Amino acid sequence: MNQNPFLGVCYYPEHWPEDQWAGDAADMASLGLKQVRIGEFAWSRIEPEPGKFDWAWLDRAIHTLGDAELHVMLGTPTATPPKWLIDAHPDILAWDREGRPRKFGSRRHYCFSSETYRREAARIVEAVAARYGNHEAITAWQTDNEYGCHDTVRSYSPEAARAFRTWLEQKYGAVDNLNQAWGTVFWSQEYCSFEQVDLPNLTVTEPNPSHVLDFYRFSSDQVISFNRLQTDIIRKHSPDRDIVHNFMGFFFDFDHFAVSQDLDCVGWDSYPIGFLDVGPFPAEDKARYMRQGFPDIAAFHHDLYRTCGRGRWHVLEQQPGAVNWAPNNPAPLSGMVRLWSLEAVAHGAEAVNYFRWRQAPFAQEQMHAGLKRPDGANAPAYAEAQQTSTELPKLEFIDKDKAAKVGLVFSYDAHWLFEAQQQASGWHYPAIVFEWYATLRRTGLNIDILSPDAAFDDYTVLLVPSLPVLDDALVDKFAKTKAQVLFGPRTGSKTPTLTIPEELAPGPLQSALPLKVTRSESFPDFYRVNGTFAGAEVQGRAWLDHVETELEPLAISDEGGLLYNKDNLYYLTTLPEAPFLGAVTGMLAQNAGVDLTLLPPDLRLRECGGLSFLFNYGPEPVTAPEDIIPKDAALILGDRDMPPAGVCVWKKQQ
Amino acid sequence: MNQNPFLGVCYYPEHWPEDQWAGDAADMASLGLKQVRIGEFAWSRIEPEPGKFDWAWLDRAIHTLGDAELHVMLGTPTATPPKWLIDAHPDILAWDREGRPRKFGSRRHYCFSSETYRREAARIVEAVAARYGNHEAITAWQTDNEYGCHDTVRSYSPEAARAFRTWLEQKYGAVDNLNQAWGTVFWSQEYCSFEQVDLPNLTVTEPNPSHVLDFYRFSSDQVISFNRLQTDIIRKHSPDRDIVHNFMGFFFDFDHFAVSQDLDCVGWDSYPIGFLDVGPFPAEDKARYMRQGFPDIAAFHHDLYRTCGRGRWHVLEQQPGAVNWAPNNPAPLSGMVRLWSLEAVAHGAEAVNYFRWRQAPFAQEQMHAGLKRPDGANAPAYAEAQQTSTELPKLEFIDKDKAAKVGLVFSYDAHWLFEAQQQASGWHYPAIVFEWYATLRRTGLNIDILSPDAAFDDYTVLLVPSLPVLDDALVDKFAKTKAQVLFGPRTGSKTPTLTIPEELAPGPLQSALPLKVTRSESFPDFYRVNGTFAGAEVQGRAWLDHVETELEPLAISDEGGLLYNKDNLYYLTTLPEAPFLGAVTGMLAQNAGVDLTLLPPDLRLRECGGLSFLFNYGPEPVTAPEDIIPKDAALILGDRDMPPAGVCVWKKQQ
Amino acid sequence: MNQNPFLGVCYYPEHWPEDQWAGDAADMASLGLKQVRIGEFAWSRIEPEPGKFDWAWLDRAIHTLGDAELHVMLGTPTATPPKWLIDAHPDILAWDREGRPRKFGSRRHYCFSSETYRREAARIVEAVAARYGNHEAITAWQTDNEYGCHDTVRSYSPEAARAFRTWLEQKYGAVDNLNQAWGTVFWSQEYCSFEQVDLPNLTVTEPNPSHVLDFYRFSSDQVISFNRLQTDIIRKHSPDRDIVHNFMGFFFDFDHFAVSQDLDCVGWDSYPIGFLDVGPFPAEDKARYMRQGFPDIAAFHHDLYRTCGRGRWHVLEQQPGAVNWAPNNPAPLSGMVRLWSLEAVAHGAEAVNYFRWRQAPFAQEQMHAGLKRPDGANAPAYAEAQQTSTELPKLEFIDKDKAAKVGLVFSYDAHWLFEAQQQASGWHYPAIVFEWYATLRRTGLNIDILSPDAAFDDYTVLLVPSLPVLDDALVDKFAKTKAQVLFGPRTGSKTPTLTIPEELAPGPLQSALPLKVTRSESFPDFYRVNGTFAGAEVQGRAWLDHVETELEPLAISDEGGLLYNKDNLYYLTTLPEAPFLGAVTGMLAQNAGVDLTLLPPDLRLRECGGLSFLFNYGPEPVTAPEDIIPKDAALILGDRDMPPAGVCVWKKQQ
Repeated sequence: MNQNPFLGVCYYPEHWPEDQWAGDAADMASLGLKQVRIGEFAWSRIEPEPGKFDWAWLDRAIHTLGDAELHVMLGTPTATPPKWLIDAHPDILAWDREGRPRKFGSRRHYCFSSETYRREAARIVEAVAARYGNHEAITAWQTDNEYGCHDTVRSYSPEAARAFRTWLEQKYGAVDNLNQAWGTVFWSQEYCSFEQVDLPNLTVTEPNPSHVLDFYRFSSDQVISFNRLQTDIIRKHSPDRDIVHNFMGFFFDFDHFAVSQDLDCVGWDSYPIGFLDVGPFPAEDKARYMRQGFPDIAAFHHDLYRTCGRGRWHVLEQQPGAVNWAPNNPAPLSGMVRLWSLEAVAHGAEAVNYFRWRQAPFAQEQMHAGLKRPDGANAPAYAEAQQTSTELPKLEFIDKDKAAKVGLVFSYDAHWLFEAQQQASGWHYPAIVFEWYATLRRTGLNIDILSPDAAFDDYTVLLVPSLPVLDDALVDKFAKTKAQVLFGPRTGSKTPTLTIPEELAPGPLQSALPLKVTRSESFPDFYRVNGTFAGAEVQGRAWLDHVETELEPLAISDEGGLLYNKDNLYYLTTLPEAPFLGAVTGMLAQNAGVDLTLLPPDLRLRECGGLSFLFNYGPEPVTAPEDIIPKDAALILGDRDMPPAGVCVWKKQQ
Repeated sequence: MNQNPFLGVCYYPEHWPEDQWAGDAADMASLGLKQVRIGEFAWSRIEPEPGKFDWAWLDRAIHTLGDAELHVMLGTPTATPPKWLIDAHPDILAWDREGRPRKFGSRRHYCFSSETYRREAARIVEAVAARYGNHEAITAWQTDNEYGCHDTVRSYSPEAARAFRTWLEQKYGAVDNLNQAWGTVFWSQEYCSFEQVDLPNLTVTEPNPSHVLDFYRFSSDQVISFNRLQTDIIRKHSPDRDIVHNFMGFFFDFDHFAVSQDLDCVGWDSYPIGFLDVGPFPAEDKARYMRQGFPDIAAFHHDLYRTCGRGRWHVLEQQPGAVNWAPNNPAPLSGMVRLWSLEAVAHGAEAVNYFRWRQAPFAQEQMHAGLKRPDGANAPAYAEAQQTSTELPKLEFIDKDKAAKVGLVFSYDAHWLFEAQQQASGWHYPAIVFEWYATLRRTGLNIDILSPDAAFDDYTVLLVPSLPVLDDALVDKFAKTKAQVLFGPRTGSKTPTLTIPEELAPGPLQSALPLKVTRSESFPDFYRVNGTFAGAEVQGRAWLDHVETELEPLAISDEGGLLYNKDNLYYLTTLPEAPFLGAVTGMLAQNAGVDLTLLPPDLRLRECGGLSFLFNYGPEPVTAPEDIIPKDAALILGDRDMPPAGVCVWKKQQ
Repeated sequence: MNQNPFLGVCYYPEHWPEDQWAGDAADMASLGLKQVRIGEFAWSRIEPEPGKFDWAWLDRAIHTLGDAELHVMLGTPTATPPKWLIDAHPDILAWDREGRPRKFGSRRHYCFSSETYRREAARIVEAVAARYGNHEAITAWQTDNEYGCHDTVRSYSPEAARAFRTWLEQKYGAVDNLNQAWGTVFWSQEYCSFEQVDLPNLTVTEPNPSHVLDFYRFSSDQVISFNRLQTDIIRKHSPDRDIVHNFMGFFFDFDHFAVSQDLDCVGWDSYPIGFLDVGPFPAEDKARYMRQGFPDIAAFHHDLYRTCGRGRWHVLEQQPGAVNWAPNNPAPLSGMVRLWSLEAVAHGAEAVNYFRWRQAPFAQEQMHAGLKRPDGANAPAYAEAQQTSTELPKLEFIDKDKAAKVGLVFSYDAHWLFEAQQQASGWHYPAIVFEWYATLRRTGLNIDILSPDAAFDDYTVLLVPSLPVLDDALVDKFAKTKAQVLFGPRTGSKTPTLTIPEELAPGPLQSALPLKVTRSESFPDFYRVNGTFAGAEVQGRAWLDHVETELEPLAISDEGGLLYNKDNLYYLTTLPEAPFLGAVTGMLAQNAGVDLTLLPPDLRLRECGGLSFLFNYGPEPVTAPEDIIPKDAALILGDRDMPPAGVCVWKKQQ
């Protein structure tokens, strides 16, 4: 946990007349901002013609910002190669699933597998890093921008096909191993050489799911190596600066845990209201939280990217007002920008960076608010950022955070597997994980979202919505933890190459939790599995496993057992509806000796560094009850009577 | 206003054995038809092989029709180039947005930018016009057919790309002007030359909106110049004939005001029932008006194309029965063909042309009714046309029309701008304009739909649903009119190249109406802005501007002012729901001293040339009240007790 | 009717270690299976490299199965050409409607028109048939697998274009005949040569419907000739074996009656639950029959394919549990696999083949259940198959079936015609035919689904939902039958090349049933034509013909007559809602002297070979009333008290 969180902003000096720069920098500093992120889309200004660099303007911009004592985070400009480069090398472009090049004219117009682009990206990163690597104003680097945005991880170009074949050869060695692993004997899909393997698009009907899964893994690996290409160069030239990348919300096409291994600190871009508009939220939540965003959207990503960053993370882009990119863009409720900022800090953020300083009056994002209006006047977020900057110093974090008590295990690879082989129309793994997260968060507990590779030692409860691929070591790690562990259906249902394990699901978990899934069913959205648990009626949906076991079910339905356990390991045979999951997690918490704080629908609680933070996401005022804010709490910000978008912070009684 | 409106029909002699022609012509004449439109799809018969013309059949057809004293309107056949031409020059084809040629096999298979096609179109028009330009039976020409039908204005072909670059160079002179105008510094989109600019399709994410808007403007300009290519040739060979084109309903992809400048008289194709089936009308209206069409569909286009044609216009294709092209095609209620015909006349049409004489038993439109059945017997519309032809002479239009009192300002360019940059999911500019039109028409007023370039002098009320691009001269024109002027939101919100004006919205309007939109929000469809106006509760939707002003709002909500005014200029900050808009326009009419005639839902009123026309669009009989038809009205057609599809005409008391 | 129906299974020896084969074979035999289908996807194992055949494994597999006294049905492997063949000859691939090759990576990756593929298919079929044609274990052949699956009948490849032109030339002789037949004078679509005719995809708007219809007919003919290519080779090498093909459910893209002419026996693949999930069934039926499938799905296809096979047919793939390919895949209710098996026998099946023996743990169908689980244990269907195998011998079929009393006339060509020219949004010909079938089946009658080419002599009632193309001979055949014949709307509405007949609809039928359709209307889904029939209120939908006739209507509405007849011929002017149709068919049955057994919603009845079968498709137990199972019925299986999925069989009282 960073003990001195600070604020920053994204700035594009190339968008504004140079005579405004010094005034902007002074204004930023006076507002209390410490950090300014620049440069990530500026290639056409840095290198306006092939090989002819124009450093002068950027030298002056960095100098001006540094003069104002702002710390500069400099982005590599690889998300937007200039037109002259694309025209010279059209093999840089990615191709879409429909078999067409994805043209220049917006951004991210490159294929991660293009050899040409890797060479060109290395060239520009080398140039920028060599020039500014030791500049005293530069305190951090950002690689590229939002890897994968606009569905750009997976390219179906000839370059991607070439690279995929190489990747397969490295993975399988001999093509017969691939044939065996994918089961290509089915439908005469056998390959005589790696050279014969195509990308899995535009097939007559569904391609082999193992083929698809490997392509998704390959695509993730290409992001990892592309990012590492940049971090290697930057570290060489700028050895003591942090390197970050700005991840996105609800985006899972590459392994963020793995990319983060090459970063010093993780960033992400938080747009809670836009995510609510485009996400699959119930109509009543879309209405109630129209100007706030669903209360768990930001927190979910905070808790995910904090573990990606091994504790070090920023909000690199914080929504400051209405945005441009959702179908509809209401403005945040007054106070929400401050709430989001403090909530990030409560989840351990080192910094919150607003996107952007001044609203651009031109091009694609001209309707995206900033801290300043296009005419230079202050936008509503300006005052909220100012208030936040004066409040942050009041938050005295008294110790390093203890690990959160509860872990939610999330696997990018599981997501790709379920994409490669749809299990049911209602089976969307990230939505399930988010639903489990939100259900759990209503209990007031701190949550860590964990990779399956994480250490589980410090947790008392572990929720595993599904983990289709297990091995003995991982089973052993779960079994040996002191935590109560709840597995959802499809856990252990697949081998690493997406076949059914010889011993059937849940695969190697059977050694610790002796039950065998002999067959499974998937259900339309209208159907519910009705059962009972702890005397109450409960419901499952979308999926049902039929099991052979000598264990007694803890929850049952007419169609079979719904929940089994042995020792600390529990297995659900269906996707639990929220009340069912809530009841099960309640039992697990009780077994683990964890106290829960059941929260009203609009309130969210987080404890951090000896402080307790309470947030009112509702559109109405609320008075927090005493089981949440103790009667004699030492209040630091706000109080028990919380307005809409209100925040209350008090010292946690240890 | 034309004082002697007449009827006509579309006829395809090439579809029928030659021995039927004379009988058909006699039948047309005896029915009272004056005009016959022919030839617009006959290229493959006129020039069956490259350069070999067969004029004989067409000579005889024109002669036969002329002999029956029918006036022949001859179409240029450029909407359907023959297969031999396409095979020889595949560069004629347009390409779709997905990057594929749009193949031969139906119609409109050409790109407006194809140099080859412009040359070939000129060649065939020259040939036809040279042969028949002075033929005494030929009284008018139609260019091509339904420009833009089937989404053919915008082509993404290499030919279009080439022409677009030239257009850009002519517009901007130097590429740096383009870079500046579009803000290409954003995302490194800068161009070093016009040659680098691609068409804005198949980009990774949304292209630059200024780029899109210019492409839409270019595409409209290509239609204008393609049409002018034809009119120049025709005028040379046939100097004293009218040149028309048949526009379509609810189609806005090119600037019809501009194309009309090169025409003598405007035509449009009226299919009210098909438009109802495919349009976004409420379910109850789709049911109630299933056999009539929504009551404002035809009138809206009459009032638009009348101004396009500077007062001179035809219905060039009038639906005579069930059509073929909508998903479902109910037959018109008995009497509707007459109603539609008389309504066109009431709006000032010079002629109503039925489409078509005899139903074709083959090819794409074989299920489209005509005045005659495929077997040659009379279809139901025959008798209605006959009745109409006897009634028209009874309508003695006693003077030239005075300008309508109310104007609705509509801009094609505004439509393209809002297409290029979607403002909200519920923001569809043509639908908004139509809704304002329909709301206004319930007041019984005559309405002109006006280009922003029109003279506003004769109007007492001007409604401007939205006009995003303003300049000082236009603001001045509004301010100096004697009319009450109501502007909707987004007026003045953009510069001509789709950036935000330096002074923010409503741009130059601020000089006359001192308020500044500091920020705006867009809302999902479920949300309503609740406010009050003149003591009543009112609602807005989709959009809300937050303004700085010293003006007092005339309508307010908890979220801010909804309506402001200074002098004769009014500004709405939200999209008003119909009752709100109705109340505001009522106030404006009162201010302007205009009397309103509030109409029941099914009735529509139009005054023309000293006559008042009342139409019953409902499926039930209705008795018109005396505030609509005065007690002592001098009835010409029908009476106060109106059957379904009934029409009543009386002399207007001056 | 086959008097000794038997069971079988689909088996893929190439998927399993060879040491399991003998055990599998013994297990099959002990379960009572008689037949095993193999080989249809094994090309890459039979010919792993170009020209190098590996017969050894297949020799051993066939030997092992034959040793267990199983009859082997051997499939030709042409549904899955191996990758080396595709890479050598990419012209084998079909192209999709969007103009793209449909790539290798699943199955059915070939174009029926590829000359290369016809040559290669002949080569592999020749090789397989030559080797095993006289093998004593081989009792039957299957050609290819599921022709047309995954929308593969219609290919838009250059090879298809070439073959289509040849087909057109053979059909029309001279291109002017084609121009005349299609009405290409419309829109200047005239062709100077067959070489100019393209495939009807990617046109600017809808292509000429006659063009489309001919393309669909051509595409069907290509399937016929491709299949015949195989059957000719097989018969040469294996003269006394049956040749079959496995048709699919709800699939109509080629003429199954015609393909069947080249087969000895017809097969089809029955997946009732998957069809329910993906089909357009009402929500309440989707819920009620979620684990059973809609009760008429299997029977409809049994009654169709029985006539295709001239009485000889198999279920070649019977769903044995949850499948993999629907969006959701519930497991069958316990007992349904037995019910489906016995129902097939009740409809005259010679055999029921379960798909598949053991669930594959890999590739695309790994989640498709078999009789055995992937781990080799018995799946639930195993016991049901075992029970069925012990029950079949109890069914003593005492005579050859008499022809069913009721015929439903179905035409593949009619389906293509209505696809080529959509009549109304609610007009889906197969759905209408299925609805008529289901309505009729509620009366307890045996139904034959008949080609228009069938002999009608043995029928007392014939239902013709629609038959747009008639000729005098067919009219005469209907008129001269002793059956009551009911025609739906659009009968006789088109010529063979999809134009309107000179005498209008119902074309040549007018000679026997003197009425003329002068015009028609189509309606949106919300609209109903309300009328009366036999004193009751009835409703039609989607369509209404207006007729000239001197006949008195039997059913009328305010909009005109709904039902007319002369002698034994009846004509509906609208699509009847089910109660209306039920009432009309009741009248026809009464006229024909046929007794009906009105069935409760969940029960279905079939009589076969002197036995009566009753099936309970409902999820609840039901007691069959005595008007269905007579009080003193000689029960063979089950009894009057029927559990869910229950079957009762008794000797029919003659």
